[in-house]
Amino acid sequence: MRRPIIGVMGGGRADADALAAAHRLGQLIGAQGWVLLNGGRPAGIMEASARGAREQGGLTIGILPDDRPGGASEYIDIPILTGIGDARNYVNILSSDVVVACPGKAGTLSEIALALKNRRRVVLLDFDVGTSFDAYREEGLLFEAATPAEVIERIKKLL
Amino acid sequence: MRRPIIGVMGGGRADADALAAAHRLGQLIGAQGWVLLNGGRPAGIMEASARGAREQGGLTIGILPDDRPGGASEYIDIPILTGIGDARNYVNILSSDVVVACPGKAGTLSEIALALKNRRRVVLLDFDVGTSFDAYREEGLLFEAATPAEVIERIKKLL
Amino acid sequence: MRRPIIGVMGGGRADADALAAAHRLGQLIGAQGWVLLNGGRPAGIMEASARGAREQGGLTIGILPDDRPGGASEYIDIPILTGIGDARNYVNILSSDVVVACPGKAGTLSEIALALKNRRRVVLLDFDVGTSFDAYREEGLLFEAATPAEVIERIKKLL
Amino acid sequence: MRRPIIGVMGGGRADADALAAAHRLGQLIGAQGWVLLNGGRPAGIMEASARGAREQGGLTIGILPDDRPGGASEYIDIPILTGIGDARNYVNILSSDVVVACPGKAGTLSEIALALKNRRRVVLLDFDVGTSFDAYREEGLLFEAATPAEVIERIKKLL
Repeated sequence: MRRPIIGVMGGGRADADALAAAHRLGQLIGAQGWVLLNGGRPAGIMEASARGAREQGGLTIGILPDDRPGGASEYIDIPILTGIGDARNYVNILSSDVVVACPGKAGTLSEIALALKNRRRVVLLDFDVGTSFDAYREEGLLFEAATPAEVIERIKKLL
Repeated sequence: MRRPIIGVMGGGRADADALAAAHRLGQLIGAQGWVLLNGGRPAGIMEASARGAREQGGLTIGILPDDRPGGASEYIDIPILTGIGDARNYVNILSSDVVVACPGKAGTLSEIALALKNRRRVVLLDFDVGTSFDAYREEGLLFEAATPAEVIERIKKLL
Repeated sequence: MRRPIIGVMGGGRADADALAAAHRLGQLIGAQGWVLLNGGRPAGIMEASARGAREQGGLTIGILPDDRPGGASEYIDIPILTGIGDARNYVNILSSDVVVACPGKAGTLSEIALALKNRRRVVLLDFDVGTSFDAYREEGLLFEAATPAEVIERIKKLL
Repeated sequence: MRRPIIGVMGGGRADADALAAAHRLGQLIGAQGWVLLNGGRPAGIMEASARGAREQGGLTIGILPDDRPGGASEYIDIPILTGIGDARNYVNILSSDVVVACPGKAGTLSEIALALKNRRRVVLLDFDVGTSFDAYREEGLLFEAATPAEVIERIKKLL
C-alpha cells in the first residue's frame, strides 16, 4: 500500500492566519504518515506547510517551476525540478490523491480548476473561493473545511 | 509588425447561443487580419471560433493536448501537437496577446486563472465567471463584453 | 488539405556553411508553400532558416521556451510561447510532419531522439550525428541529405 | 543536508544482463541512503532499479508520463503524475543530482541529450551510446562505468 500524497496549494504570500493554518495542516499531514506535496518554494503557504510536515517527521515533495537547483524551501525533502514554469501546477494536482487549497490568488485558482477538470477532489481550507466553482460542489469534488483538523477528517473520508 | 494573436478559450461543450457568439467572434477576428489561437479540438467553442475565422480567411492555430496527429478540427490551419495534456492550457494563454474567454467549465477557468497569473489581459464574452477573479477587474486585467463586436472594440484598445 | 509543417532543428550556434545551408533550406521550404517550424530564437539555425522561409513568403512558426514575449526572431510570424523550457523540444518534433536536423549539439540531439521515439521521420542535413541512432536508419525513420535540395526531395517522398 | 537524488534511466525493454545490472544498481543506491528517481513504469530498467532500491529500504520516485493513477511500478513509493508525456524526460534529468543511463533506445538517448544540454552529469552503465555525445566526455559531463559498483564510486566523486 502506497502512502497517500496530499497536495497543499496556496499563495506565495498569505496573511498570518492562513500561514498558521497551513503550518498546522502540515503538522497533521505529517503526523498521519501521509506525504505532503506542494509547489516547493520558500514562501507563503508552501514554506509553512512543508515546515509543519517536517516537524512531524513527514516526507515533503516540492514540485518546482525551475530548471536549476537552489530555489526550493529548506523544508522540502525531494525537490522535483520540472523546468516547465507554471505548467507545473498541472503536475501538482495530478500527483495529489487529495488537493487542499489554502488562500491564494490566480495561481491557486488555476490549481483548483485543473484539479476539478481532472476529477481530483479539492478541500478548501478557510478559503472563500467565490462562486466560480460552485457546480463542482454538487458533483462531490469540492469541499470546505474551517480548520486543519476538519481537512484531515475530510481526507480520511475521501481516501 | 507581427500580427496580433487572439486566444479564444471556452468549453468543448457549449449551448447554441455561446456557439453562435464564438462563431461570430471568429469571423470578426479573421476579418481584422488577426491570428486566432485556440485549443484546436473539433468541438464546442474551439470548432465554432476556428470555423468563423476560416470563413473570413483568417489564420487559425490549434494548441492540442495530443501527442499524435488526427485530433484537430478541420478548421485549424496549424495544429501544434504539444503532447503535454492539459498543461497545454498554459501554452494557450502565454501565446495570446489577448485572451477571450467564452463560456466553459473548469478547463476554461484554468485558462483564465493562468492568464491572469501571467498578466495576460482576459475579455469575458457573455460568460458569468462568478466572483473568484474579481480582484483582477480592479487591476485592469479582466474585462467583460456582451457581444463579439464589443470584444473586438476591447481588443483594439488593449493592443 | 492542411499545409505540411516542416520542422527545422539545429544549433543556436553554427558555422558559416551550416547557416548558409539552413538559410537555403528555409527558402526552399517557403517556396514549396510548406510551413516552417523551429525553436523560434534569434540565433543560429533557427534565425537562418526562418529568414530564408520569410524571403520566399513562407509562414514561420517559432516554438519558444519562454514565458514572456520578446525572445523571438524577427523572422517568426507566429511565436508560440510555451513557458516550458527545453520541454518545448518535444512540442517541436511532435508538431512537425517531417523533422530536418541541421548541425547542433545536445539540444538538437534531444530533438532527434524525441522525434525517433515518437516515430517522426528525421532528415539529417550535412550533420554527422555519430552512431547513436544507427538502428533508426534501418527502421526507415532516419535519413541523410547532403544539400538543401536533397532534403526537399526526401520530404516530397515522405509526405 | 538534502539526500542526493540519483536518476536511473534506461529502456522499457532490456536484456537480462542490463536488468540484473539495473537491479544491483538500485540496491547499491538504496544502501547508500540516496533517493532513486526514474520514469516510474512497471517495465525494464525502471522496474528493475526501483525493485533493487526498495529491497534496501531506499526511497523511490517515479516521474510518470500519465495523467491518471495506475500506471506506476509497485516498487515506486512516490508516483509523480506529470501528464506531459515524453516531456517528463526533461523533468527526470533536471531533478537528478547525477543521471545514470543504462541501455535503452531513443527515449534514453533523449534523456542523455537533455541532461548534457542542462549540464547534468551522466554516467553510462555498460551502455555503448555510440559517438554522438563524445564532445561531452571532454567537458567532464559524460562518464562510463562497467559495473554498478563503479557507478557508485563515480557518483561519490561527483557529489
